[in-house]
Amino acid sequence: MEKETVRMEGFSDAIFAIAITLLVLDLHVPDKETLSSSAAIIGYLTSQWPAYVAFCISFFSIFIMWVNHHKLFKQIYSRNTAITFANGLILFFASIVSYPTALLSRFFNTPSANVVVAIYTGMFILINLSYILLWDIASKDKSLLRPDITDRAIKKIKLNYLYGLPVYMVAFGLSFYSPSAALVLCTMLWIYWAMSSGKLEMAN
Amino acid sequence: MEKETVRMEGFSDAIFAIAITLLVLDLHVPDKETLSSSAAIIGYLTSQWPAYVAFCISFFSIFIMWVNHHKLFKQIYSRNTAITFANGLILFFASIVSYPTALLSRFFNTPSANVVVAIYTGMFILINLSYILLWDIASKDKSLLRPDITDRAIKKIKLNYLYGLPVYMVAFGLSFYSPSAALVLCTMLWIYWAMSSGKLEMAN
Amino acid sequence: MEKETVRMEGFSDAIFAIAITLLVLDLHVPDKETLSSSAAIIGYLTSQWPAYVAFCISFFSIFIMWVNHHKLFKQIYSRNTAITFANGLILFFASIVSYPTALLSRFFNTPSANVVVAIYTGMFILINLSYILLWDIASKDKSLLRPDITDRAIKKIKLNYLYGLPVYMVAFGLSFYSPSAALVLCTMLWIYWAMSSGKLEMAN
Amino acid sequence: MEKETVRMEGFSDAIFAIAITLLVLDLHVPDKETLSSSAAIIGYLTSQWPAYVAFCISFFSIFIMWVNHHKLFKQIYSRNTAITFANGLILFFASIVSYPTALLSRFFNTPSANVVVAIYTGMFILINLSYILLWDIASKDKSLLRPDITDRAIKKIKLNYLYGLPVYMVAFGLSFYSPSAALVLCTMLWIYWAMSSGKLEMAN
Repeated sequence: MEKETVRMEGFSDAIFAIAITLLVLDLHVPDKETLSSSAAIIGYLTSQWPAYVAFCISFFSIFIMWVNHHKLFKQIYSRNTAITFANGLILFFASIVSYPTALLSRFFNTPSANVVVAIYTGMFILINLSYILLWDIASKDKSLLRPDITDRAIKKIKLNYLYGLPVYMVAFGLSFYSPSAALVLCTMLWIYWAMSSGKLEMAN
Repeated sequence: MEKETVRMEGFSDAIFAIAITLLVLDLHVPDKETLSSSAAIIGYLTSQWPAYVAFCISFFSIFIMWVNHHKLFKQIYSRNTAITFANGLILFFASIVSYPTALLSRFFNTPSANVVVAIYTGMFILINLSYILLWDIASKDKSLLRPDITDRAIKKIKLNYLYGLPVYMVAFGLSFYSPSAALVLCTMLWIYWAMSSGKLEMAN
Repeated sequence: MEKETVRMEGFSDAIFAIAITLLVLDLHVPDKETLSSSAAIIGYLTSQWPAYVAFCISFFSIFIMWVNHHKLFKQIYSRNTAITFANGLILFFASIVSYPTALLSRFFNTPSANVVVAIYTGMFILINLSYILLWDIASKDKSLLRPDITDRAIKKIKLNYLYGLPVYMVAFGLSFYSPSAALVLCTMLWIYWAMSSGKLEMAN
Repeated sequence: MEKETVRMEGFSDAIFAIAITLLVLDLHVPDKETLSSSAAIIGYLTSQWPAYVAFCISFFSIFIMWVNHHKLFKQIYSRNTAITFANGLILFFASIVSYPTALLSRFFNTPSANVVVAIYTGMFILINLSYILLWDIASKDKSLLRPDITDRAIKKIKLNYLYGLPVYMVAFGLSFYSPSAALVLCTMLWIYWAMSSGKLEMAN
């Protein structure tokens, strides 16, 4: 059975690649005029630490989105309209990650940190839901999947996304009390996903 | 018969992917200095709703352009100079979608909404015409197409693009009286296309 | 014989695609504050005509660069270090086209039109030379080429690039006397290349 | 044995291609208002020479990163989680090259040249380490590599990256005394790599 989703994967990869590379555009270079000494430049650059933190976590969150996308589409062999548009929804969110990231980097060390972290974690709830939706659509019709996939593997993938949901929701709630803790929680989930991604693959 | 259009499709996919991802650059992040409270940020962000609406409809319109491009090139196996440049015209319009989108997002809730919606819907008339042109060129010479394509399928694809034309023209005319209605009409056409795209594929 | 240049072509295609799509970033959207009426927007947009002209000719010149790149690499099956870096030079120029384009669009209807058109046409001399260099390197060692290529085809491709050189040089010289005429000359060359590209392919 | 890393290479190529093309966004076009004569434009453009130098060396350093990536992945046939994330680290650095480049281009001819050249060369130490890490992970488990690779080739590749490290460290140290010399040293290393890359390939 031929894999029908090659061009869809290529298109998705391109969007993930562009979204991840555009993040750098929010690292601002200071003006020549305002900074006239080495100390001033170093001071400016260190004051930008929220932008660097935001860049790092957004870079690796899109990277993990890509890794997950890759793993899902290793199991999906055919496509229908529903899969095409559920995938479009994932790409929609991938392409806007840079916007909440820019908000986060600019307002994290201000009194408005709560708002921007809530938007940031809220976005990941939506991203998580879009992956659950894609896999739900794909796994409902086994003729779309890799012919030799087991029911156990299908369920394992489903659970892998499902347990992300409560974590993101806790992070979202937490962002109103402790924005830093909310970001740490998200980062821990990604590290867990990165480290467990090998095991998931073996299960399929 | 080998498919000759692989590199052309890869190049087109890359342009669609970049065009769709660059749309996010028109979502502006407010300055730290001007917004000093959570309420001010929320106020700023909600005032940006035309930008979000414009982003969404442009994202999905480029996405549907890509889906359609994908479907057409599943039928086109060879290429000639005319197909190369008709495809170039489609890519030309895909790459400029962000410009009318930026105009739309910035001027939709001003007295100039008519002008920017007319430009926006006018662009879709041109996009529609460029797809009609590509398919016209391709279907005139059956040696360029998938060997087992039926005349019925060729005609069905042609009709699918042709009935978009009057809808876009009505939307263009409508934009001078009710810009919102014009945008709703375009959106409805895209939802119809998205939902009918499965049927179209079956017909081929 | 397996084609070894697939990844190099994919990388080149991506750079051409990004370079061609980034051109739109130089089409500026007016500020909401400065333009308060429909007439003011229409006035602003029409005053931007040099930007639209520059966008169009740069878009199609990169597109023709891609078409030519595609044709050359249909003949090149292996690669060595020299080909890799001659190709890198072509990609270098492809990625900077947007800069002279931006200069052109901003200064074409000023007294400095001469300078910016000279830079613009000068860049195409360099682009032309980089294509000549690539083909020179490739055709010096026939083991790098498609096994069944004829000497006549090799020469025909070489001539195709060589006659571009004097045209661009005339355009460069002309830019100091009549910038518009220099641009028209470049555009005519591209139209000729586009129309003759079919014939070239047949000859191979 | 089938190569498993195709989609990872495609994704990496896209990121390299975007990172290399975004560099042009830091070449600034002067405002129409501030420059009213041809002489003023030429004066502005020539004053921008550090930006052009920075653009050139960053362009070719990313290009050489891509060439090296290409060579490594010709030897890597399978992937595991560690390779995926070591590759992610390389892509992380590839995507941020434009930021130190922008700092370099803006502050090279100021008294702060030391700081920005130290950041720039420091980044290449990190990039070098990430390549060493990737190859270390890959070569620890020969089942991940091209089946017929020799131990001599594995070691040769390792050495090729290892001797870059002291050069970059000297360049980093040098940047505090003579920023220009530090940049010249980096450039010389890249020219050496470019010229020796053919030999490396033959050894595999």
